[in-house]
Amino acid sequence: MMSNRKEIHVEWGDCDPAGIVYYPRFFEYFDACTNALFESAGFRKAEMLKTYGLLGIPMIDTRAQFYAPASFGETVRIETRIVEWGRSSFQVEHKLYNREVLAAECAEKRVWTVRDSQARNGMRGAAIPDEVKARFA
Amino acid sequence: MMSNRKEIHVEWGDCDPAGIVYYPRFFEYFDACTNALFESAGFRKAEMLKTYGLLGIPMIDTRAQFYAPASFGETVRIETRIVEWGRSSFQVEHKLYNREVLAAECAEKRVWTVRDSQARNGMRGAAIPDEVKARFA
Amino acid sequence: MMSNRKEIHVEWGDCDPAGIVYYPRFFEYFDACTNALFESAGFRKAEMLKTYGLLGIPMIDTRAQFYAPASFGETVRIETRIVEWGRSSFQVEHKLYNREVLAAECAEKRVWTVRDSQARNGMRGAAIPDEVKARFA
Amino acid sequence: MMSNRKEIHVEWGDCDPAGIVYYPRFFEYFDACTNALFESAGFRKAEMLKTYGLLGIPMIDTRAQFYAPASFGETVRIETRIVEWGRSSFQVEHKLYNREVLAAECAEKRVWTVRDSQARNGMRGAAIPDEVKARFA
Repeated sequence: MMSNRKEIHVEWGDCDPAGIVYYPRFFEYFDACTNALFESAGFRKAEMLKTYGLLGIPMIDTRAQFYAPASFGETVRIETRIVEWGRSSFQVEHKLYNREVLAAECAEKRVWTVRDSQARNGMRGAAIPDEVKARFA
Repeated sequence: MMSNRKEIHVEWGDCDPAGIVYYPRFFEYFDACTNALFESAGFRKAEMLKTYGLLGIPMIDTRAQFYAPASFGETVRIETRIVEWGRSSFQVEHKLYNREVLAAECAEKRVWTVRDSQARNGMRGAAIPDEVKARFA
Repeated sequence: MMSNRKEIHVEWGDCDPAGIVYYPRFFEYFDACTNALFESAGFRKAEMLKTYGLLGIPMIDTRAQFYAPASFGETVRIETRIVEWGRSSFQVEHKLYNREVLAAECAEKRVWTVRDSQARNGMRGAAIPDEVKARFA
Repeated sequence: MMSNRKEIHVEWGDCDPAGIVYYPRFFEYFDACTNALFESAGFRKAEMLKTYGLLGIPMIDTRAQFYAPASFGETVRIETRIVEWGRSSFQVEHKLYNREVLAAECAEKRVWTVRDSQARNGMRGAAIPDEVKARFA
């Protein structure tokens, strides 16, 4: 499966009083990496939303394991790939390296979600277009 | 086991262009709830750090499942409890309700971490003091 | 002019490696306070957007001065009021107190902004409805 | 005076329900740019803290003006320079461009702040070392 690699410079403002990345920021990194993976496959998010009437690809299940900290001034490298496509959901995997050490891993399950004024909360899952899946093959 | 209940008002700035809470913000909510649980047990974080030479209680494993969105202006309620104490780690569980509906759940594993200039990354796990565990009994 | 008072508990995740509130978080606090002021006047943001076709009240000019730090576990109190109404813009003022000491002040100028697919960037300023201004009188 | 240029990719998570950058995130951008300016002058923040017993360079006064919005997927360019050195404080200026349009400007006044257990809040301003100023000349 296609994968993408993204480097992120850890900022002072990403770190907590312990001097290490505040863990919710890692989820911001991972979210940026999933968007970057789609962009690398030709799907810039802003266009994707318009083309498919997409509200977004909200998270429904995510698990992250943290093996080593990262701190401001370090540049981490994240490798991201889609590991499984369902009908309306898909699974993403991230591996985050800090100085060549695997520092964190994350698994995500997201849903292809369209606007629907009839649905509860104004949104519902929808079938992922084949052409989207095809670009990642 | 002792539990704590915290209400959080979802802010405009917590939400993404889909109009719903940007999921990394939920982890900020959960982290605040774990700190509030300790505070409710008599351990204000700032004092706890001093008393025990603690660097913090960093996350090593967390999984969240999201069942329903939340949006700005809504007030969510989060119930938090410690479900297991290990020697130097412990597990926390959060249940987040939005208008009485279970909207998200989160499991966390954190480590009681002290400063140690000899250790790799300047920190290491340490035994959780019995008096800390006792307050949650 | 009507004012509003809001207390905010400074979270661990709001603070940087210096152990004090990372200053962009203060702007998140101030933004929440402006929204709270409107809500206290009867204008919940979600409803206000629908009622008036409002995109939001984006910031066009803000200045903050910081006199004393705040740290996690502290509860700050912010007093917010609208100091001037223009045709389509208005000015807000915040005073933030930490343990009765004025710790920060902020001035904001915001624009009442509606969606307009013809306008550049899909949005434009619009006259603030008189009924909105009236509620703050 | 020496200046630095930094490009920042606007992330989905930086944007609010209006679909544009939530303005406190711009302050995160600006803060990252000030740190990048120092780094470009040879002062990586982590090392600078150790070398000079520095707590940080906290903000005491900042003003930003926003002329045009930015949205996720866009890459903004920020030009940063120090415009004035005082004894213990200095002023920074940022100009943020989105597709060659000046979209925001920011002025900052920061203080060179060292740890001092005797001082109120455990910190105090200190004279900026001449060698630091010299590198920016």
